Amino acid sequence: MDFTPVLDFSGKEPLYQQLYRQISLAIQGGTIAAGQRLPSIRQLAKLSGVGKITVEAAYQQLLTEGYITSRERSGFFAAEIEVWVEPEDLSAASLLPALPDGRDNREDVRYNFHGSVIDTRAFPYREWRTCMLEAMDKYADDFSFYGDRQGEWELRQVLAGYLRRVRTLQCAPEQIVIGTGLQQALSFLCLLLADRHRVVAMEEPGYADARVVFVHHGFTVVSVPLQEDGLSIESLEKSGATVVYTTPAHQYPHGMVLPVAKRHQLLQWARRVGGIVIENDYDGEFRYNVKPTPSLQGMDRDGTVVYIGNFSKAFSPALRMDYTVLPAALLQRYLSSYTAYPSPVCRHLQRTMQLFMQKGHWDKHVRKMRTLYHRKHDLLLKAIHTHMPQAVRVLSHSVGLHMLLEVETERSEDELIEQALAAGVRVYASGRSWAERPVDLLPRIIVGFGGVEEADLDEGVRILAEAWFGAAASA
Amino acid sequence: MDFTPVLDFSGKEPLYQQLYRQISLAIQGGTIAAGQRLPSIRQLAKLSGVGKITVEAAYQQLLTEGYITSRERSGFFAAEIEVWVEPEDLSAASLLPALPDGRDNREDVRYNFHGSVIDTRAFPYREWRTCMLEAMDKYADDFSFYGDRQGEWELRQVLAGYLRRVRTLQCAPEQIVIGTGLQQALSFLCLLLADRHRVVAMEEPGYADARVVFVHHGFTVVSVPLQEDGLSIESLEKSGATVVYTTPAHQYPHGMVLPVAKRHQLLQWARRVGGIVIENDYDGEFRYNVKPTPSLQGMDRDGTVVYIGNFSKAFSPALRMDYTVLPAALLQRYLSSYTAYPSPVCRHLQRTMQLFMQKGHWDKHVRKMRTLYHRKHDLLLKAIHTHMPQAVRVLSHSVGLHMLLEVETERSEDELIEQALAAGVRVYASGRSWAERPVDLLPRIIVGFGGVEEADLDEGVRILAEAWFGAAASA
Repeated sequence: MDFTPVLDFSGKEPLYQQLYRQISLAIQGGTIAAGQRLPSIRQLAKLSGVGKITVEAAYQQLLTEGYITSRERSGFFAAEIEVWVEPEDLSAASLLPALPDGRDNREDVRYNFHGSVIDTRAFPYREWRTCMLEAMDKYADDFSFYGDRQGEWELRQVLAGYLRRVRTLQCAPEQIVIGTGLQQALSFLCLLLADRHRVVAMEEPGYADARVVFVHHGFTVVSVPLQEDGLSIESLEKSGATVVYTTPAHQYPHGMVLPVAKRHQLLQWARRVGGIVIENDYDGEFRYNVKPTPSLQGMDRDGTVVYIGNFSKAFSPALRMDYTVLPAALLQRYLSSYTAYPSPVCRHLQRTMQLFMQKGHWDKHVRKMRTLYHRKHDLLLKAIHTHMPQAVRVLSHSVGLHMLLEVETERSEDELIEQALAAGVRVYASGRSWAERPVDLLPRIIVGFGGVEEADLDEGVRILAEAWFGAAASA
Repeated sequence: MDFTPVLDFSGKEPLYQQLYRQISLAIQGGTIAAGQRLPSIRQLAKLSGVGKITVEAAYQQLLTEGYITSRERSGFFAAEIEVWVEPEDLSAASLLPALPDGRDNREDVRYNFHGSVIDTRAFPYREWRTCMLEAMDKYADDFSFYGDRQGEWELRQVLAGYLRRVRTLQCAPEQIVIGTGLQQALSFLCLLLADRHRVVAMEEPGYADARVVFVHHGFTVVSVPLQEDGLSIESLEKSGATVVYTTPAHQYPHGMVLPVAKRHQLLQWARRVGGIVIENDYDGEFRYNVKPTPSLQGMDRDGTVVYIGNFSKAFSPALRMDYTVLPAALLQRYLSSYTAYPSPVCRHLQRTMQLFMQKGHWDKHVRKMRTLYHRKHDLLLKAIHTHMPQAVRVLSHSVGLHMLLEVETERSEDELIEQALAAGVRVYASGRSWAERPVDLLPRIIVGFGGVEEADLDEGVRILAEAWFGAAASA
C-alpha cells in the first residue's frame, strides 16, 4: 500500500484539505479499493511528511462524508462507493450546455408607456430613507428572528386604519396578511380555497397573469363576458363557478367601474352559492374628477369578499409588498391549517412602511401622486385628441394609470406595437387579456402614463401617431 | 319631488361628497324610487342652495357608480338597485363577530433555544446600513418598475460565484431564482413539477413545514425511513416517488450527514426514474471541526438536483430572502411557462445584499458567525455534559445551529417543553417531524444555540436540567 505517489501538496488549500481531497478522489476512482485498509494516522503522517493533526483532520472529514469507515482497534478502511467517472471538463460551460438565458431583457426605449411604471421624480426618497434608518434603530432586534406570519402587527394596524378611512373597508388588523404581490397572493388563496372550490370565474377580457395562477393550481377557469357596465352577472350565475376574480373599481384592461346595482347582485350571488369574490383593487386610489369608488369589500355583509391591495401603484412596484384582507371564515381556515408559511416580506421593509404611514407620509404621497397622475392623465388625453386621427378611440380613462385605445386598422396589435417600438415608443397589447380573443376585434392598445414624464407625453403620443399613421396624421 | 328634507350639509366632507352620499343612500333605501326622475342640475342647485358645479360633481360620481343614469335631453333618473338594508351598527366589532386573533403571540422567555434565532450581537449593522444607503443612491431608478423576475442579475452573479466557491455548486447566474423562503420556494416548485410528478418522498422524520406544502399542493407524500447514515435508498427505490426532498448536509432534525456512497446512489436513482432531488442546504455552511460537506448539486451530472439555500441562518431569518438553483430542464420549463410571476423580493433589498456580497462583507460575516457558533456549539455541548444526567443523550451535533437531545423519561415531549417553559427556557419538540411518530420513541428535544448568548448557555442548560430532573441532577 504505497500512498506516496498519490500525494501532492502543491495546492493552496490547507494541507488537511488537500490530503482529504486526494484520498477521497483515490477512493472514488478505485485507486484505493473498497475495503482496503488505510495507513494509520501515525503511519500516514510519517509517509507524507505532514503532521499527525493534519492527517487526523483529513480522516475526520473522510469519515463524516462516508469515504472511509473506522473499525475499533483495527483502523480505517475505504468504504464501498460506486465507481465514479469524473467528467473531463468541470467548467460551467460544459455542465450547463443548453442553458437558456435567464435574464429579463428589456431594451431601452425613449418613451415607455407601461401601465405599471411609476414616476420616480416624485418618489419620496428623503422620507423613505429617514424611515428606513429609524426602523433599523428602533427595531434592531427584529433581525434576530422571523416576524409575525401575517406581517408586523403595527403595520397591519396603521394599514387597517387607512383602508377603513380611504377605501371604505370593514377591516381589522387581524384580517390582514402582508404579501409580496398579486400572483403570490392568489397562489396562497388557491391553497386556502382548494378544498371547497374548483371553478373560478374571470372577466373576459381580464388579467392574464391572474388567470394563469388559477390554472397552475389546477382550477377550472371559466370566462364571464363583460357588458358595457362590467361583468355579466347573468353569465356568472350560469357559469358554475363558486369563486370570481374581479377588478370592480377599474376593470382590467377595459376600465369601466362596476355600478352599485351589479355590486349588490355580485354579493347576493356569493351569498347564495357560498362563493368567494376576490376583489383586486389594484389602482382604485387613482380616480380623477370624481372621488374613488368605494370598495366592494366595504359593502359585503356576509364575509364573502377577499380584498387585495398593493403598494405598487401609489408607491413603487419594486417594493414587492401588498396585502390581502381575509373574511372571517377564510381567516379561520388560514389560522387553523395554513400557519406553516412564514411571512415572505422582510421585517425591516415592513417596519419602514409602518413608520412611513404612521408619520403621515403615505397619505401625503398618495395625494401628491393623485394630483400628478391627474395632470398626466389630462395631458395624455389631450395629446391623443391632438395627434391621433378619428381611427383611434379612447375606450377608458379617468381611473388608474392607463388608458385603452381602440385602433381602426387592418393591422394587428403586434404590428402596431412593433411599429411603435421601431419609433422608440413602447405601448402594450391587450390581446393576452382574452382567454379567447374574438377574431373580428379591432386592436386595443394599453397606454400607461405613470412612468412618462409630463413634458414628454405630448411628444410621445405624436411619435406614436406618426408611427401608426404617418407624418400627415400627426401634424 | 321634494328633495329638501333629504339634504343636510352639516358634515365635514366637501359639499359635493355630502350631496352624492345623501342621494345615493336615498336611492339605495328606496326614498328615491327606481326610475324616478331627478331634478336637473340647475334645479337642484337652486333647491339646495349649493353651486351648480357642486351638483354637477355629485351627479358625475352618482353616474360613474351607477346610482343614476342619464338619458339624453331628458335628464337624470334613479337606477334600479336591489333594496339594501344598511346594518344598524357598522363598527368593526359588529361586522367581524367571531374574528380569531391573527397575532403570532410569543411570550418572552429568558432563554430561547430556537434553532432559527440568530445572534444579533454579531449582526453587521454598520456595513448593512452603508450598503442600504449606497444601494438607494446607486440604484435609485429601480423604484420605478418591477425588477428581473428571477432576481437582480448582479446579485445572482455574485451569489453564483459564492455558491461555486464555498458550496461546490455547478451554478450559473441564469439558474438562480431569488425567493422569499423555503415554503414559498417549494410552493413554486410544486407548480413547476405538477405536470410530471405526483409522489414526493420525504425523510421520516423530516421537516413538517415542508411536508405540509407538498400536501397543500395535492402531492402524495411518502415517508422514507432514516437509517444511521441518513435516508434509506432502498426504501426510496420502492416508494414509487419521483421527487425526494432531502437535507443531505445536515438531516433535519436528526443531524446526520449523508455519506458520499448514498449521495451517488441517490443521484443514480434520480437518473433512473427521471426524478428530481430537492436539496435543502439550510445550514450546511455551519459545520464545526471539519470543513462543510460538498453539496449534492455539485456532484450531479444529469441535471436532477434542485438546490435551495438561504440567507436566514448566516445572516438573518427576518430578511426573508433565499434562492433556488434550477437544473437546466426545469429552468427551461420555468422560462417557457411560468414567467407570469414577478420576483417577490424588494429590489432595494436585493441590491443591498448584492453590494454587501460584492464588498466582501458576506464572506467575512459567515466566517465570523462560524467561529462564534462553533464556540457556542462547544459551550452548549460542555454545558450538557456538565449539567445533564446520563438520561440525556446528544443525538447530533457538529453541524448547523441546533442539537437533538434524547431524554430517557416517561414524560412526553410536550411535558418536557412545558416544564422548561415554566422555568423560563424554551426548547422545541421534534415530534412534529414525524409523519407517524413511533409510539415507543423517547422524547427528542431540539435545542438551538444561535440566539442564546455565550455567557448564558451554561446557565440556560443548568436551569433546563433542573426543570427536568430537579436541583440534585444539575448540581
